[in-house]
Amino acid sequence: MPSPEFFQVLPVADALKLLDRHWQPTPAREFIAAADALDRISAVEVRSPEAVPAFRKSTVDGYAVRAADTFGASQALPAFLEVLGEIKMGERPPRDIGSGQTMTIHTGGMLPEGADAVVMIETTQVIDEGEIEAMRAVAPGENVIQVGEDVAAGAAVLPRRQRLRAGDIGGLLAVGIEQIEVLRAPRVGILSCGDELLPPEVAPPPPGKVRDINAYTLSALAEKEGAEPLRLGIASDSLEDYRARAEAGFAQSDILLLSAGSSVSARDYTRDVINGLGAPGLLQHGLATKPGKPTIIAVCEDKPVIGLPGNPVSALLVARQILPHLIARFLGQKRERPLMTRARLALRVASETGREDWLAVRLRLTDDEIPLAEPILGKSNLIFTLAGADALLRVPLNSGGLDAGSLVEVEPL
Amino acid sequence: MPSPEFFQVLPVADALKLLDRHWQPTPAREFIAAADALDRISAVEVRSPEAVPAFRKSTVDGYAVRAADTFGASQALPAFLEVLGEIKMGERPPRDIGSGQTMTIHTGGMLPEGADAVVMIETTQVIDEGEIEAMRAVAPGENVIQVGEDVAAGAAVLPRRQRLRAGDIGGLLAVGIEQIEVLRAPRVGILSCGDELLPPEVAPPPPGKVRDINAYTLSALAEKEGAEPLRLGIASDSLEDYRARAEAGFAQSDILLLSAGSSVSARDYTRDVINGLGAPGLLQHGLATKPGKPTIIAVCEDKPVIGLPGNPVSALLVARQILPHLIARFLGQKRERPLMTRARLALRVASETGREDWLAVRLRLTDDEIPLAEPILGKSNLIFTLAGADALLRVPLNSGGLDAGSLVEVEPL
Repeated sequence: MPSPEFFQVLPVADALKLLDRHWQPTPAREFIAAADALDRISAVEVRSPEAVPAFRKSTVDGYAVRAADTFGASQALPAFLEVLGEIKMGERPPRDIGSGQTMTIHTGGMLPEGADAVVMIETTQVIDEGEIEAMRAVAPGENVIQVGEDVAAGAAVLPRRQRLRAGDIGGLLAVGIEQIEVLRAPRVGILSCGDELLPPEVAPPPPGKVRDINAYTLSALAEKEGAEPLRLGIASDSLEDYRARAEAGFAQSDILLLSAGSSVSARDYTRDVINGLGAPGLLQHGLATKPGKPTIIAVCEDKPVIGLPGNPVSALLVARQILPHLIARFLGQKRERPLMTRARLALRVASETGREDWLAVRLRLTDDEIPLAEPILGKSNLIFTLAGADALLRVPLNSGGLDAGSLVEVEPL
Repeated sequence: MPSPEFFQVLPVADALKLLDRHWQPTPAREFIAAADALDRISAVEVRSPEAVPAFRKSTVDGYAVRAADTFGASQALPAFLEVLGEIKMGERPPRDIGSGQTMTIHTGGMLPEGADAVVMIETTQVIDEGEIEAMRAVAPGENVIQVGEDVAAGAAVLPRRQRLRAGDIGGLLAVGIEQIEVLRAPRVGILSCGDELLPPEVAPPPPGKVRDINAYTLSALAEKEGAEPLRLGIASDSLEDYRARAEAGFAQSDILLLSAGSSVSARDYTRDVINGLGAPGLLQHGLATKPGKPTIIAVCEDKPVIGLPGNPVSALLVARQILPHLIARFLGQKRERPLMTRARLALRVASETGREDWLAVRLRLTDDEIPLAEPILGKSNLIFTLAGADALLRVPLNSGGLDAGSLVEVEPL
């Protein structure tokens, strides 16, 4: 019987820094339709092939004029202008205008040659079909968007490594860029190991067996963070099978998660399997976090490999602290600190210094503006503790516990 | 020539309340794989068909015992136990144990009949192959998860109208629920109208024409909020074509967005087209927001119909204030207030009371902990104003402007 595990634990943040020093991701690229690029990351800086707008455009409904013809115009002394016709939407003006002449124009309409401004309809009066009065002067360029005023041909329209938002997609399509080169989403391989595990479709599992749910909770986490999960199945507690499946999965993945079954042999094998995947191999065994202490942090052949605990709650809670950082780094992004909500703690929570604790809590709205965080009691490694929770309470590394009534920060689930 | 538009504007929040009073969404449902249900909304409360765990399970590595056999055991006076063998992971124990007997068990292993507790390996000592000493007493149930302790058969495992998270998916699969009934995502139809509009693939558009980008920016917004966008194409400025396309699109949509081209006729037609789609029709024309003032809020035959401005920046900024609320309501969710970030304003921003202004800003990190928000100057209705922005600054309804250096809240893009 192997002896219990003792290891020097490291805070998660330090373990991630250690990993970062050994991992320089080289993301792959792919071309996709700009229309489908929401939340994808641009691979390169994009420049506009065209000027926008491509023609001088009115920003109001009114009359295209030579500004000089309106100088000095007022309600008392309006400028009289001959109306030559209408500029239809989407069409080139049928003719030019000269001094003292104008044409009806609509918002977004194209200015005719000879015009350099637009008088708003609200400041005009129709005399008859062929003549109007302009009752206010306009300056040259007034109510007009000039060629290239939105963006000049050749100007940068999207920086490198930008997460695309609705407005960015609009900008790309506005200049006719239909295909864009983005970073390929990282492939997160997920391999579970344990003789007790069966795929979830087996109902009911025979006595002693349980369904493998880590593959699905970790997939959902990867997907949520913008990665492509690869479910690699279940390895048995035999070193040969575990190694063979890990190697095959490693070859397809950019990031590999091993969720070792809870059996002793699977736990022991994980270190060997990881070190067999390539140098430098295991960097750290043991994190100063609960749950998740026996986690392994490794880099093999420039890919992160994480050995997670087998318990589904432990695996998910520790993966939440590691995987978003890895995915963001693969995509050249800085992982933002997760958004926290303030809450008031309903009960005293005990902890130990030197360890960060994560506890499932329910949030209850009160008369107070701040919700009450009620820790979910009972054994914390049961999946329905997490399924029933609203948020996670973090008990900081150097806290011996948190008092009832204290203000805490919780991370909504 | 039509006269300029004057209308009694309403704050966006009030317009949405008005809409809500006329709209009782009846969402459709569908069954999907639980593994694919991330961020979907449960249609019904889900109960567990099974107890979890289905067998008594050890939470540690050690020895399955009758607790009574260890009573009074200590380092000085250990309890001697006969080891009958090992309980393999994933297997039913090969036999029962009696008084004074034990079996080796692993974390997650199944307790044999006769045992009611597990002594941790750390508190034992091996005497020889067939015997150990237990140096600490365990209480009945210690280090054991009882049948149904995680969840009882028939217990609720997922409430109705819950957005599914990784942990929820884990919970469903843990009890063998592979298919789940969720609310179908709302279909958001998007129809653009205007003779000047061409699909974005036309490069370069002839003079006077522009690419229709609203279809794509609004699609991206709908997708981001969990809806299914339906791009309905471009209607010409003819009332017949506009009406025919709106009616066909309305039939397929749960929510319809009309983005009227900027031509006067398209604008005028939108009211008529909307009222033709069914009762009660137009509820409000004009919102106290800039950009977005000429927006139309309507409900036709129990579907929201929104008439948006044609300018892409205006259309997107006003849709951001309306569409997330509609999608959330369709899905029985409360739309959370968008997450705001504090920033310090770099320049004075002028506004008018009685109108909420939205301005594109760049955020610049400073020595201060709070980023500096720099409004993007120039004509605010150009798409690259938005594509180049980091966030949106809201100038509140009753503010005449915001001073340089003041603390403001911005909504990250």
